[in-house]
Amino acid sequence: MIYLDNAATTEPNGEALARAVAFAQTNYLNPSAQYGGAVLSALKEAREGILSKIADPAQFELIFTSGGTEADNQALESCGRRNLVISAGEHAAVYETGVHLKSAGTELRLAPIGKDGKVDADALLSLVDEKTSLVSVVHVNNETGAVNDIFSLAERVKAKFPRCLFHSDGVQAFGKLPVRLSRNIDLYSVSAHKIGGLKGTGALIKRKGVALSPYLHGGGQEGNLRSGTENVLGILDFFYVAEEKFRTLEADFARLAGLRKRLLQSLDECFVPISPEDGSPYLLTVSARGLRGEILQRLLLERGVIAGTGSACSSKKPHSRVIEACGYGKDISDGVLRLSFSQKTTEEEIDFAAQALNAAAADLRSRIG
Amino acid sequence: MIYLDNAATTEPNGEALARAVAFAQTNYLNPSAQYGGAVLSALKEAREGILSKIADPAQFELIFTSGGTEADNQALESCGRRNLVISAGEHAAVYETGVHLKSAGTELRLAPIGKDGKVDADALLSLVDEKTSLVSVVHVNNETGAVNDIFSLAERVKAKFPRCLFHSDGVQAFGKLPVRLSRNIDLYSVSAHKIGGLKGTGALIKRKGVALSPYLHGGGQEGNLRSGTENVLGILDFFYVAEEKFRTLEADFARLAGLRKRLLQSLDECFVPISPEDGSPYLLTVSARGLRGEILQRLLLERGVIAGTGSACSSKKPHSRVIEACGYGKDISDGVLRLSFSQKTTEEEIDFAAQALNAAAADLRSRIG
Repeated sequence: MIYLDNAATTEPNGEALARAVAFAQTNYLNPSAQYGGAVLSALKEAREGILSKIADPAQFELIFTSGGTEADNQALESCGRRNLVISAGEHAAVYETGVHLKSAGTELRLAPIGKDGKVDADALLSLVDEKTSLVSVVHVNNETGAVNDIFSLAERVKAKFPRCLFHSDGVQAFGKLPVRLSRNIDLYSVSAHKIGGLKGTGALIKRKGVALSPYLHGGGQEGNLRSGTENVLGILDFFYVAEEKFRTLEADFARLAGLRKRLLQSLDECFVPISPEDGSPYLLTVSARGLRGEILQRLLLERGVIAGTGSACSSKKPHSRVIEACGYGKDISDGVLRLSFSQKTTEEEIDFAAQALNAAAADLRSRIG
Repeated sequence: MIYLDNAATTEPNGEALARAVAFAQTNYLNPSAQYGGAVLSALKEAREGILSKIADPAQFELIFTSGGTEADNQALESCGRRNLVISAGEHAAVYETGVHLKSAGTELRLAPIGKDGKVDADALLSLVDEKTSLVSVVHVNNETGAVNDIFSLAERVKAKFPRCLFHSDGVQAFGKLPVRLSRNIDLYSVSAHKIGGLKGTGALIKRKGVALSPYLHGGGQEGNLRSGTENVLGILDFFYVAEEKFRTLEADFARLAGLRKRLLQSLDECFVPISPEDGSPYLLTVSARGLRGEILQRLLLERGVIAGTGSACSSKKPHSRVIEACGYGKDISDGVLRLSFSQKTTEEEIDFAAQALNAAAADLRSRIG
């Protein structure tokens, strides 16, 4: 099978996993125990190692979480209760937390997104006022691959209201795009399993000085912000995986940008691109206008290609909230396919997938009429 | 080293871990993806497998969490905001969540515990009234090993106020004591790493029909009660470990009860037992009256024995809140050592540890004069 849904999750890095398993099997002591120093040191090394990949450890700190969803939830839940401005292109972990906060009395303001999923910066800024506790804008839109310029957005928000916090869900950016957090970014969520780590591990990166309320209460782990015995295996694996992924980040980026372009050029005209040209090279979203994405997905499976139809996390819903927010009608929304890549994706796979996509679409079109 | 702090965490079961790693490496698809059925089926099997060990799956359901702490937090946070009755012997994950809820306006009522850490049942019952949302009593006290009769307590609470929920932290009971949840138990927290699973995995077991609010918002996983991509490796490992641990539960119970008695009988008179005779066979807490537990712990380390001084999760605090609540003064509280066992603990280890304990105490006593 050719796996092109790497934005949903990607193959675990086997070598990193073997290393992490070997560590966790030998160093199994509780890091909170008085004699647990060796494990605590390893966690510290992992924390600094992951953090330093995208931020200055003198200015930022990192809280390990059970994944990107928890990091997003903690960022939003911890930050005041006045009004919250998010983009209409947010992942469910941000959007549904916003909806939950709304039900608890917080005003939720949705900034519109364009056809490619990118937030309208001016419209977002106009929604921010002196009562806005937090602005949250996804770094790489997980359904379209659009890259929001979070640095410019955060700078503009801070220029207007310096006390307003700025959060970004960086799950599809971390380890894929060159990122260096500026001091205008207060909170940034990352996940391990999108770059070859394990499901169930992630982190919330926070600028020092930003006050968060504890998310889980108990033994006081993670600087009292996230109690519970640390997921040592998942955390070390995340560290090992990040070390490796960042080593080839620039090369992967350039190579996949080429493959993505090649794929788009090989597709028949019936496939309308949703992703912007300057989107993440890891993701190409198209719509087979007038066809149904989930049927195409099944036909592709039969031809040996695994493709996505949008966010795996919202697969139970009939339509994508984000694609609808992009302003597309039913004919485009119905036909969405998300093709997403990893550093392992090859040119041969891309060429095979393009043929399979064209053939599946032609097949389906001939069947329906 | 002889490891006698298995209540803090225990050695991962290597075979189960290898099986889980092999599964997660091969079946890495996102269980929420339309094509992720194989992984979803494995999660379902794990869910039913773990649940059926201690409850009837027709009456109960299981929500996977990032550990016992999250399960405890979710149980308490989800359940109304009137008054909350907990025992003074609760683990920090329950106690600190109670303190947090108190700061948010919930009345927190603490039921007293006896010298052995067992809750005073009559006193607890007298604190419950028509405004009590939830009663939480730890099943096995993690610092003393006292076993609370949660079935009788829950029955009495329900007889008085049928709508009051009953939760128990079963982290030190699951896989160690024979347990079958009765219909009076609404919520029960368990953890994987106390029985040979991985840190970062646990579950909240809930009686069907009990309404919980979602804890993490997002993609709607775990019946919409706990969003976030499932920790597949940790969950499967938990399942494999539980399968094996429950197979020898009764035999381990009987054997460790004997070893625990043997250890207590081998200790010099200066060691005062805190654990009740009918406590968990996995745990023996004593106090070296007039000595300091953490110094003894260090001397034991030099002699090749790892012992605990209480809950690893509250190791940063000078005194144990729970031991103080048992009603002991400074001379006993200071000298507490927790010795906790696993199914791998041998008679030879127990005998060696007893000698080391006696020698370390004599050594320390001679030093201080």
